[in-house]
Amino acid sequence: MSDGFMNQVYLPALDDIFAASRRIEGVAAKTPLVESPSLSKRFGRRVYLKLECFQPIRVFKIRGAYNKISQLSSKNIVAVSSGNHGIAVAYSSRLLGKKCTVILPETAVQEKVNTIIEYGAEAIKYGKYTTDRDAKAKEIVSKTGATLVHPFNDPDIIAGQGTCGLEIANQLDDFDSVIVPVGGGGLISGISTAIKSLKPKAKVYGVEPQGAPKLQAALKAGKIVTFDSPKSIADGLIPSAVGELTLEACRKHVDGVYNVSDDEILAAMKLLIREAHIFPEPSGAAPAAVLLANRDLEKLGEKVVLVISGGNVSLDLLAKTITDDD
Amino acid sequence: MSDGFMNQVYLPALDDIFAASRRIEGVAAKTPLVESPSLSKRFGRRVYLKLECFQPIRVFKIRGAYNKISQLSSKNIVAVSSGNHGIAVAYSSRLLGKKCTVILPETAVQEKVNTIIEYGAEAIKYGKYTTDRDAKAKEIVSKTGATLVHPFNDPDIIAGQGTCGLEIANQLDDFDSVIVPVGGGGLISGISTAIKSLKPKAKVYGVEPQGAPKLQAALKAGKIVTFDSPKSIADGLIPSAVGELTLEACRKHVDGVYNVSDDEILAAMKLLIREAHIFPEPSGAAPAAVLLANRDLEKLGEKVVLVISGGNVSLDLLAKTITDDD
Repeated sequence: MSDGFMNQVYLPALDDIFAASRRIEGVAAKTPLVESPSLSKRFGRRVYLKLECFQPIRVFKIRGAYNKISQLSSKNIVAVSSGNHGIAVAYSSRLLGKKCTVILPETAVQEKVNTIIEYGAEAIKYGKYTTDRDAKAKEIVSKTGATLVHPFNDPDIIAGQGTCGLEIANQLDDFDSVIVPVGGGGLISGISTAIKSLKPKAKVYGVEPQGAPKLQAALKAGKIVTFDSPKSIADGLIPSAVGELTLEACRKHVDGVYNVSDDEILAAMKLLIREAHIFPEPSGAAPAAVLLANRDLEKLGEKVVLVISGGNVSLDLLAKTITDDD
Repeated sequence: MSDGFMNQVYLPALDDIFAASRRIEGVAAKTPLVESPSLSKRFGRRVYLKLECFQPIRVFKIRGAYNKISQLSSKNIVAVSSGNHGIAVAYSSRLLGKKCTVILPETAVQEKVNTIIEYGAEAIKYGKYTTDRDAKAKEIVSKTGATLVHPFNDPDIIAGQGTCGLEIANQLDDFDSVIVPVGGGGLISGISTAIKSLKPKAKVYGVEPQGAPKLQAALKAGKIVTFDSPKSIADGLIPSAVGELTLEACRKHVDGVYNVSDDEILAAMKLLIREAHIFPEPSGAAPAAVLLANRDLEKLGEKVVLVISGGNVSLDLLAKTITDDD
């Protein structure tokens, strides 16, 4: 999609996801999908992990960002991000020879800020609220003619994230359900579009932190619901609302949304590190928290895929998670 | 190969490895091969990790053990093992409905002993020396008619381990070298047989701990050299000698063997955990120690595959590795 059509909003379909898959080839990894025998044993069903933490930037967001930016003619890119989206946009922009500016909250995790700078982007810490940063981004766009890349409410971003769903459908012949972390809803919109086309019998569930139930609220209200101060240890899952596009995609394709507490997310991180020997960030551990919290496991079926969306976790938190007694 | 031919010694060829690959399908995992961008950056060449730590038993040895045991008519299986081979034989025996006895050194890592018992095998801790345990195994074989499964000096074991090499050749179009940890030499014999057939230009290097340079000594002497007290933190790499078969395979196919200290192996574990976010056991970290110790990197070329042979590491060692300052 060229710049001129950015405001024409449509839901991506399976063909768009296939096209995205060709565009991101060689840039985003086809990440591993592995069964965790110890989680399978523990939960009495086969548990598979889709390991987006093995992306080159350790998080799925490279799929959407590269799919989007590789189609833009603009030489200047701007993103507003608490971290992972900024990393993905910075990384993709550098590969594509574009100048990139990322506007972050003052509370952004320092390791993520450093990574953005390391990828050659300008990182601007600005303002307390998302609305401040959105205003700053618009200012830069109008001054420089840069293109703003939205983290989720964009058909090219959604189609890019959908390639994760394509891979799951290729990697596993049959499965009953997939659980996907929900921030703004880009990942679950893309994955559910792919899965419902290719494996129509499989269920797709979202998971949100209790402090930021944006999708659950929006699905219930039938419209976007904005949260003034969404809170969670899962820093990738706390935008203030889902988008019009992602809400529409989820309304069509998503079978339900689970709710987990921060304590459950932390316990899930411990479980994944200790038993599955992977390093998820809190957002990436949320799907395992659904199993651990024993939320209605029957409906998940005999074969469950957990999308471990990312692994940008600090060594401090890792060490604490491994050494904590419980 | 049926039981009757067990003493007929031959080197497996590519066809034997393809046959093994069909036998172990659905039992052993086709493990992920991922690039580590941070290791690539650090070492100035592309570094790929073949993640055998994602096998169902967290170590490559399931490949050879299942390939072997699935061809045996005997209902009783015996293994002499310091851990990982015992785990593989116990696991395969259970899947195949056979009774299994594993004879371990009194110093075996307790977590590995527990795993063997959990897989339904009888674990016998016996004697101080390998020769004691070999004698005990022969006693059981002559009393019960059980079949002894050797950890490496067996063409079916070597062919099974070779499936790891098949996968590398399928997963990566071109690469310059592969570095493989060497215990008794089964893994490197199998991998080098596959790689030299399918990617004849690629080099295959072994790596041994300084306290147990069995293959280096044997290649130099032109015959088996036995070490009385091989020592290393890498508990999978300290049999007292390589085998006749593995020596012969390595003489034909292996381009060189590196030597690393225990300190270098520990530093490599830290590096893999902190930068690549994987959990190797010490033996599995040895190939990364070659890079870290800066041993003649030029000859490794631009694309290097490290075989992370296993991940059966205790949580204590993990925690220590993450929290240690350096």
